[in-house]
Amino acid sequence: MASTSPTAVFLIVCKDVPGIVAALTSFILKEGGNLVDVDFHTDREEKLFLGRVEWNLDTFNLTREALHSALTDLCAGYEGRWELHFSDVQQRVAVFVSKQDHCLLDLLHGSQLQDVNSEIALVVSNHDTMRGVVESHNIPFHLTPITKATKAATEQAQLSLLSTHKIDLVVMAKYMQILSDDFLSAFPNTINIHHSFLPAFVGAKPYHQAHQRGVKIIGATAHFATVDLDCGPIIEQEVVRVSHRDSVDDLVRKGKDVERSVLARAVRLHLLHRVLTYGNKTVVFA
Amino acid sequence: MASTSPTAVFLIVCKDVPGIVAALTSFILKEGGNLVDVDFHTDREEKLFLGRVEWNLDTFNLTREALHSALTDLCAGYEGRWELHFSDVQQRVAVFVSKQDHCLLDLLHGSQLQDVNSEIALVVSNHDTMRGVVESHNIPFHLTPITKATKAATEQAQLSLLSTHKIDLVVMAKYMQILSDDFLSAFPNTINIHHSFLPAFVGAKPYHQAHQRGVKIIGATAHFATVDLDCGPIIEQEVVRVSHRDSVDDLVRKGKDVERSVLARAVRLHLLHRVLTYGNKTVVFA
Amino acid sequence: MASTSPTAVFLIVCKDVPGIVAALTSFILKEGGNLVDVDFHTDREEKLFLGRVEWNLDTFNLTREALHSALTDLCAGYEGRWELHFSDVQQRVAVFVSKQDHCLLDLLHGSQLQDVNSEIALVVSNHDTMRGVVESHNIPFHLTPITKATKAATEQAQLSLLSTHKIDLVVMAKYMQILSDDFLSAFPNTINIHHSFLPAFVGAKPYHQAHQRGVKIIGATAHFATVDLDCGPIIEQEVVRVSHRDSVDDLVRKGKDVERSVLARAVRLHLLHRVLTYGNKTVVFA
Amino acid sequence: MASTSPTAVFLIVCKDVPGIVAALTSFILKEGGNLVDVDFHTDREEKLFLGRVEWNLDTFNLTREALHSALTDLCAGYEGRWELHFSDVQQRVAVFVSKQDHCLLDLLHGSQLQDVNSEIALVVSNHDTMRGVVESHNIPFHLTPITKATKAATEQAQLSLLSTHKIDLVVMAKYMQILSDDFLSAFPNTINIHHSFLPAFVGAKPYHQAHQRGVKIIGATAHFATVDLDCGPIIEQEVVRVSHRDSVDDLVRKGKDVERSVLARAVRLHLLHRVLTYGNKTVVFA
Repeated sequence: MASTSPTAVFLIVCKDVPGIVAALTSFILKEGGNLVDVDFHTDREEKLFLGRVEWNLDTFNLTREALHSALTDLCAGYEGRWELHFSDVQQRVAVFVSKQDHCLLDLLHGSQLQDVNSEIALVVSNHDTMRGVVESHNIPFHLTPITKATKAATEQAQLSLLSTHKIDLVVMAKYMQILSDDFLSAFPNTINIHHSFLPAFVGAKPYHQAHQRGVKIIGATAHFATVDLDCGPIIEQEVVRVSHRDSVDDLVRKGKDVERSVLARAVRLHLLHRVLTYGNKTVVFA
Repeated sequence: MASTSPTAVFLIVCKDVPGIVAALTSFILKEGGNLVDVDFHTDREEKLFLGRVEWNLDTFNLTREALHSALTDLCAGYEGRWELHFSDVQQRVAVFVSKQDHCLLDLLHGSQLQDVNSEIALVVSNHDTMRGVVESHNIPFHLTPITKATKAATEQAQLSLLSTHKIDLVVMAKYMQILSDDFLSAFPNTINIHHSFLPAFVGAKPYHQAHQRGVKIIGATAHFATVDLDCGPIIEQEVVRVSHRDSVDDLVRKGKDVERSVLARAVRLHLLHRVLTYGNKTVVFA
Repeated sequence: MASTSPTAVFLIVCKDVPGIVAALTSFILKEGGNLVDVDFHTDREEKLFLGRVEWNLDTFNLTREALHSALTDLCAGYEGRWELHFSDVQQRVAVFVSKQDHCLLDLLHGSQLQDVNSEIALVVSNHDTMRGVVESHNIPFHLTPITKATKAATEQAQLSLLSTHKIDLVVMAKYMQILSDDFLSAFPNTINIHHSFLPAFVGAKPYHQAHQRGVKIIGATAHFATVDLDCGPIIEQEVVRVSHRDSVDDLVRKGKDVERSVLARAVRLHLLHRVLTYGNKTVVFA
Repeated sequence: MASTSPTAVFLIVCKDVPGIVAALTSFILKEGGNLVDVDFHTDREEKLFLGRVEWNLDTFNLTREALHSALTDLCAGYEGRWELHFSDVQQRVAVFVSKQDHCLLDLLHGSQLQDVNSEIALVVSNHDTMRGVVESHNIPFHLTPITKATKAATEQAQLSLLSTHKIDLVVMAKYMQILSDDFLSAFPNTINIHHSFLPAFVGAKPYHQAHQRGVKIIGATAHFATVDLDCGPIIEQEVVRVSHRDSVDDLVRKGKDVERSVLARAVRLHLLHRVLTYGNKTVVFA
């Protein structure tokens, strides 16, 4: 952990009304909290106030229930939405995969997550390919084969697994399946990696599309999964230069290196409660 | 000039048949040419051979006419297309602009072109805004106002200007008008800058589109203009990172810095005869 | 201007003691100010609290003198340093140049500064090369030739010019001279651009050094000038990829494109009061 | 493999004398070889000719011994150095590690190497930490503890292992030990990863140095190991942006992501015979 003492994180998006920062930071001070990070920003075009506050809990007077209750009162006057998180609550992640391993391995290895209080608690796949590597990490692996006919039933089984394993976040690590509206309504907290620099090349085979179009740079995009394919709020993007010497296979290879980095960074940012969605966008407090 | 002695540049795209490199380089050697750069590549997917050869002319035995004739004979057996250029032939560039000056100023200043044997011989605009700065560089400025009704006639006048000024290349430096099929058929050697990372955000107001979509990286694309808007062969692309703190105005400002660099680089590469188009793609020998 | 109403900007670096954010934002609220941006951060290693607050002044109750006085009282209890700026106070910039024009032209053109409340009020050079372009922008140009023998006297004359022209910031836009300890003590608010990715290649001819070393990426660094050459607090850096095909001249050309962007960005950030120095580092609130 | 048929790769650096390309490509054509890639370049400053030719062997008439002999004759007249490689000769790689696993895991996973004809044949370490993961990949792991007193003897044992396992390339994947002059004389084909953007921050603890200096970008450098620490020919570099919010631990974490990518790319380029050293530099034909 970056901090040795637990912290609370408060995220808010609300109409731009004066007073929220003063009210909030005065309240935290009064109750004995030491601020670690304060980042507030006005979106002038949308007339919204967006913010994140993190403070140490070791000298904080209130119980978490009392804190939650106090924040409910404090925020009652602001039109918007807020979240409260605690850094010592371990978050449980389910990784959905298909046959490609590079994103999964990166998450399992965890060099980008080792200071984040989280656990990969479950891996779900429509293929048995990854069972060995997953189980060697002592992580439960669940095979959920999927066909058009079985899709609805399979997704219900997957949702049931998420519930049983008390999962907080689903990471689609090259899952290569489209989660249905029903699934995402039931479990919206889902991050996907798309192997293009969105919104370029939505849909299938983006590297083939990129090769066909003759682009000079390719990329990858981590975003929240939504029912509109490849259209969810973007969390992180990265690019890499390519040339006419690169075949489609080369694009795939170079792209893999970017995909895993982008996905790991997006998952990290989300698990550190640095990502706030509003409309179809994100604010990343980083 | 990077080289003090003149060079010849030969570009070819042809079916992948053995022998072209040996035939060509043996021919150049026999006639006394010293090779400066040789870059040949096989596109395995398209089964095409793509190449560029540059050699010094100061010790070369043939006249340019004789060289052209010899190359015509030499290439007769290869199914494809070739070009021959000479570095001491100054290329004449016409810049088409509208009201924005950043790309034009970059080309006028020419820090990316000062070792390239070219001249901005003409600036054409549908607005009079840039007349002063252009004429202060002793470059002819031609106002060609354009409306729906006059578009065809105006383009004919522009083509006439290109002919009168013996223009080799048109650079659309934020011209903000769509050149017609007729214009581009008559003058295909036209480079445009699009203020997005194509194929994302084709069409109007790409920065507004990018802001709306909440992307984390924006870019610019220099490409050959074709009748399909924003769909021509891509020469160069570059990107810059943005965040939720960036308004549309910020994207425009950050984007301008990228646009001018990308456009200047693409123009430079083209004027050095390092760009070869095939199908809807380019090979950039760089 | 990004904001149509004037704003106040408060910057602080102090020992990490609870209460500063609450005290400050409550004070601003009480006096009628609307927060635009709040960014506070704890440097855990240095145990320092670093922050920037910006608020609208149009509804603010206090005069600027009263505000200054109130902040002096409010900050008395915190061990550190603070600054107060107003966005409607135009900042006056002096640009020091030598014979290279790319950074100067970029600042004169100002596409990265057009929404910043500042003016290039003076250009100073040890060569007469840039007089024409500077005076064509109706900006005073002062020739201050410099030799070893005259250096001290010349610098005094330069300082006198800065004073006469009420200059707030000196930008060394490829000035190619080392400002003395005396000069920088008298006028510390000086930004320099070094044409390498510091701390690589300090001193003279960094592109030659880079070529000699065979690096694959070059860069540029904007930093505050200090008496230790090329060792001042870094504000901004950027890089560009190079290859064995690039001669020293190519590195210089590619580097110029980076230098001007990096310098313009650093100047912009500083003029927006987004740069805070502490020790030999900067915090950039961006 | 990118190509299904085996290819030969010829690399040369020699004084810039006319005729080498024609002689070489004519010879290859005469013996039935189909060129895949031809890349020759003149270093005007050093007056050197640098090149790489790759051709298919399936229709080639000569045995490999005859080819080698013919090239020896052909190159006798050129002052320089050449290499000949065959793509179907599997290269055997030894990875030297210490306690950090991210570079090793990336090489073991091999997503950047899966089309390269090579095998990690041996892992050597001064610590036992990585034994489990290495042996789970069915790769021999050799513990070679090292102290000042035992260094010479340990290196002899390591050289002996390299010989026994017929190793072609040593990759120092965060080995954190300095290989002696004796070792590198005996086995010069050794690639190291340094966790800085060389030549910035040579020596120990580069991320601490970078944090101390307050740089805005950090990087990693893959280079050939030489007796001058961190001064060998650079193969590949990459960078990542950092800010004042990043602690030393954050630099380490962000840096790891870059280190593994840069090292894997350098190893890939070398194993594809795309890297040619001359003086203290490399040419990377990519």
